[in-house]
Amino acid sequence: MSDADLAFASIEEIARLFRKRKLSPVELTKLMLDRIERLNPKLNTYITVAAELALRQVKKAEAELFAPRGRRGHRDRGPLHGIPISLKDNIYTAGIRTTAGSRILKDFVPQHDAQVVVMLKEAGAVILGKTNLHEFAYGVTTNNPHYGPTRNPWDPSRIPGGSSGGSAAAVASGLCYGSIGTDTGGSVRIPASLCGIVGLKPTLGQVSGAGIIPLSTTLDCTGPLARSTRDASILLRAVGGLGTPRHTDWSTPKFSRKLKKIRLGLPKEFFFDLVSAEVQSSFDSTLRDLRKLGAQIQQISIPLLDNTEDAGNQIAWPEATYFHQQSGWFPARSEEYGEDVCTRLEMGAKTSATVYLKALAQRVRFIHELSSKMYDAGIEALVVPTTPIAAPRFVEESTSIGEKDYPTRALLLRLNRPANLAGVPAISIPCGFTASGLPLGLQLIGLHAAELALLQIAHTYELAHPSSRRPSL
Amino acid sequence: MSDADLAFASIEEIARLFRKRKLSPVELTKLMLDRIERLNPKLNTYITVAAELALRQVKKAEAELFAPRGRRGHRDRGPLHGIPISLKDNIYTAGIRTTAGSRILKDFVPQHDAQVVVMLKEAGAVILGKTNLHEFAYGVTTNNPHYGPTRNPWDPSRIPGGSSGGSAAAVASGLCYGSIGTDTGGSVRIPASLCGIVGLKPTLGQVSGAGIIPLSTTLDCTGPLARSTRDASILLRAVGGLGTPRHTDWSTPKFSRKLKKIRLGLPKEFFFDLVSAEVQSSFDSTLRDLRKLGAQIQQISIPLLDNTEDAGNQIAWPEATYFHQQSGWFPARSEEYGEDVCTRLEMGAKTSATVYLKALAQRVRFIHELSSKMYDAGIEALVVPTTPIAAPRFVEESTSIGEKDYPTRALLLRLNRPANLAGVPAISIPCGFTASGLPLGLQLIGLHAAELALLQIAHTYELAHPSSRRPSL
Repeated sequence: MSDADLAFASIEEIARLFRKRKLSPVELTKLMLDRIERLNPKLNTYITVAAELALRQVKKAEAELFAPRGRRGHRDRGPLHGIPISLKDNIYTAGIRTTAGSRILKDFVPQHDAQVVVMLKEAGAVILGKTNLHEFAYGVTTNNPHYGPTRNPWDPSRIPGGSSGGSAAAVASGLCYGSIGTDTGGSVRIPASLCGIVGLKPTLGQVSGAGIIPLSTTLDCTGPLARSTRDASILLRAVGGLGTPRHTDWSTPKFSRKLKKIRLGLPKEFFFDLVSAEVQSSFDSTLRDLRKLGAQIQQISIPLLDNTEDAGNQIAWPEATYFHQQSGWFPARSEEYGEDVCTRLEMGAKTSATVYLKALAQRVRFIHELSSKMYDAGIEALVVPTTPIAAPRFVEESTSIGEKDYPTRALLLRLNRPANLAGVPAISIPCGFTASGLPLGLQLIGLHAAELALLQIAHTYELAHPSSRRPSL
Repeated sequence: MSDADLAFASIEEIARLFRKRKLSPVELTKLMLDRIERLNPKLNTYITVAAELALRQVKKAEAELFAPRGRRGHRDRGPLHGIPISLKDNIYTAGIRTTAGSRILKDFVPQHDAQVVVMLKEAGAVILGKTNLHEFAYGVTTNNPHYGPTRNPWDPSRIPGGSSGGSAAAVASGLCYGSIGTDTGGSVRIPASLCGIVGLKPTLGQVSGAGIIPLSTTLDCTGPLARSTRDASILLRAVGGLGTPRHTDWSTPKFSRKLKKIRLGLPKEFFFDLVSAEVQSSFDSTLRDLRKLGAQIQQISIPLLDNTEDAGNQIAWPEATYFHQQSGWFPARSEEYGEDVCTRLEMGAKTSATVYLKALAQRVRFIHELSSKMYDAGIEALVVPTTPIAAPRFVEESTSIGEKDYPTRALLLRLNRPANLAGVPAISIPCGFTASGLPLGLQLIGLHAAELALLQIAHTYELAHPSSRRPSL
């Protein structure tokens, strides 16, 4: 296998090669570190590369895995053993600085690991480093004013999306085999969609947020970014998001090649009000593909969807501002924030408590309406685009749809916030390319704790529509 | 027994007379209705007297109780069977108008009973009517602009306290045998203290708030007002606040005549910073009495107490305003509110979400600190005054303590809010009189769900210091 093929192989393939002794974990980590050294100056996906720690970790991992079976010291930690991954830089890592993409935390080195890092290390994963993000995860461009913009591997003049933009771009360009990000209003799914990979936002609270710098405690979720649904499943299982974590468990969920009897819902409201022609026609063709696989697609009315955008902001803004106030950073150190984040923190300070309380009440009603309508109709997942447009250029502050211009940031968030507001799982998977070669994402939004159902539907689609296209780097 | 003695008898005495056939429930309800007719014009404790419904209810109760034992139709519902009580007028009563002391709801007749009313009726209690309160329970004077002020039975030129002022004054003047009120920042305990009766605020959520017009969903509690701790226990048990409700259960808690080994905490912070000389000297003598009964009194430091006043307001204000906004009343019908309530609703609209979130976080820290300090020190209850002053005159907008003037309303609330913020139970019991004959209250603040411990301590004190003083009406 060529180095490039190796860099884009699946976690399962790599794990198989390790166990056949056809590949050394240490060599693979070195390959990744070489690629990062070569490609990161162009893409800027990593803020911090922890080469030394990664090598120390992978040597220990290789010693365990390659010690003769039955001998003292042998240990097989399961599919992630020796696999190099990255972490969004708002996740605490003991001994590796954790900037959250901010100037304020530029020299912050945590004393302990976030809970997900403890679990990933226990599963044998090798931490290559910390990926770039929108400052404090508070934005969707990853045009970071302090550490520079992360560039979209499919077109460096375009954003990778955010806030987990560095994670998505690193996964998409073969600079790691998976990453963990956070998603408050789409921050895992948006960059996954714009970079052509898989991004999963689990059910609220399903994956620990302990040791992760928060944005909005009511909406924040922690989830994996990967190049395939099976890789995403392996990562999700390791961090406890697919039932009890069993690190050595090789069984990925049983997947079917058909979607017989699977009912998918096409929301009547909100989702298709504002979608570019290109995304809409690609989506229509994806729907036909899903039907061919046996899925039943039916319309579903969820009237409260129209309130999700405002309510999401009215919850996220003051919660974010409150955290930054409590940390003593805002407004005391306002000048150290990027302009956009500072403006958002100011908006949060202006939100009134009654508006916040109203948004919380709308959230409760929306949770109820969404779940009851889906249960009543026997629908396993809503099927919608992840973003109404493909990756915009860095300079693109507004984007035209039809005759009108819309703020690009709001467009990117728009179709993602409903799943955060409801606290339900949602996955974005690649579903083709625009005429100019930019990836597009299909979003499946599931019922509470139904990560497995989403992964199964996504996997069936993925198997039927494999893509070998890689960004030219 | 004279009619006056009968009017002030305990629930247990009345229940005993009923079962000896020495008193007819119907006659007793008529006695109460006569007293209300005679005394209510002076005291204004009831907004609505439900004479007809009460008589219908009590006839049915008497028929059940007086039917020969063993015969069809006989039923003994326990100590509240046939006992005439009142309800604060923010508690839904099917077929009886429920004004919440407001002009906005002056003609509102609910279709269903609040959960506590369902339970009280099941226990056989007879609902005499609905008592006056501070408009929407949002104040502590019960100087109601729409239904007139309730007057303190001990001195009609003085307020009864609030917001459950009508309930407290009705119980204190023998116009019912107990009442149910609500307490968001002292609204049961303050009027109990100023009217010389027992008022209990249970643990948050211990007694249902379903069907009660809310003030602050984070702080509201529903609790009994009565002339003795045993009467309060009987009412509390009927509404589910002392374990599972067993309406026919006659067993009131086992009370001891001693307080041996009971450790009571005297807070170092906050509670004694601002107390009138008269209340302080009376409290000191109460402490001596408690020591004589065997209690150990020890100082306890709870530094976060100093934050409770602001945090309580910052939670209560926006929550109250949000409810009135959602109801479509505020600001649309501002001119229909009393001036003071309208001002408070405006303050709630001005509270920012970050201030609200900070107050919620302070609440969590305070809950933790209070309980851990009390557990560590082995303290069963804090012992403090209920109010730093006795009942003020209606005209009294500010009250002097030492050399300085303080807003009277804030003084009355001051020592009550900590128990609401922590969600823990607190009881106010009579502990003597000022030189001019105004009653004073002793407050015991307990650990989560420790209503029974509070009632036991209070009962022991009560037994040792009985008072036969009644207001001259």
